[in-house]
Amino acid sequence: MKLQLNLSESPYVFKLNNESGAICTIDSSQDIGGKNKGLTPMQLLAGALAGCISIDTLMILKKQKIEPKKYLVHIDALKRESVPSPFEKIHLLFSIDAGVDLTKATRAVQLSIDKYCSVKASLNPNICVSYEVIRI
Amino acid sequence: MKLQLNLSESPYVFKLNNESGAICTIDSSQDIGGKNKGLTPMQLLAGALAGCISIDTLMILKKQKIEPKKYLVHIDALKRESVPSPFEKIHLLFSIDAGVDLTKATRAVQLSIDKYCSVKASLNPNICVSYEVIRI
Repeated sequence: MKLQLNLSESPYVFKLNNESGAICTIDSSQDIGGKNKGLTPMQLLAGALAGCISIDTLMILKKQKIEPKKYLVHIDALKRESVPSPFEKIHLLFSIDAGVDLTKATRAVQLSIDKYCSVKASLNPNICVSYEVIRI
Repeated sequence: MKLQLNLSESPYVFKLNNESGAICTIDSSQDIGGKNKGLTPMQLLAGALAGCISIDTLMILKKQKIEPKKYLVHIDALKRESVPSPFEKIHLLFSIDAGVDLTKATRAVQLSIDKYCSVKASLNPNICVSYEVIRI
């Protein structure tokens, strides 16, 4: 996998490109001069985890002919108060539309986290990842 | 830190929002139905690492009154061939403009990786992160 990261604006605004031309803007947190032109690296990390679990979850449900119409994840992540400040806990609240069997959806999320999610498998195992699945 | 991830388009296009309204689009890889409308979760993870190290590197250089005019990172990441497929190696090639002392830039990158980068500290320590610093 090849990507490019380019400083596009002072002090800390970057463009991240993949080889097919998709782009994401990264900015620093506002307390060190960020302008909220993009998400921070730690926000992207937490979002990448939720995105990865979500793709696997939706794939598992699709195999069971289940396709949620509404699907939303609230991410609540806690960093350690140290330098560096890695994540200590990431809680994911999955909200799925009422047409989907909650037990099946919960099993799909659990399976994604335990068996399929490559972002989860790339994280430090000390980070506590918890979740809950509810109806929208 | 609070974020929201919303399924915006079938099968796997998501919008990731932070609380200040910055947005990033996430898509799955094309081999499972992605449309390259955004970066994949694993691409975002590798980009978050490069972005985090870059912000810290530029902050360290700034304290030394060094401000690169051009700053670019080539990211080359290798995943394990397994399920899940976490990163095995991530190599970062930092290209900095000719006005910057290469030894100071290299020290700043090393310090970021070892001491400051919270994304690096959130990754599985088995992932080999290597780097090189060259002039543009």
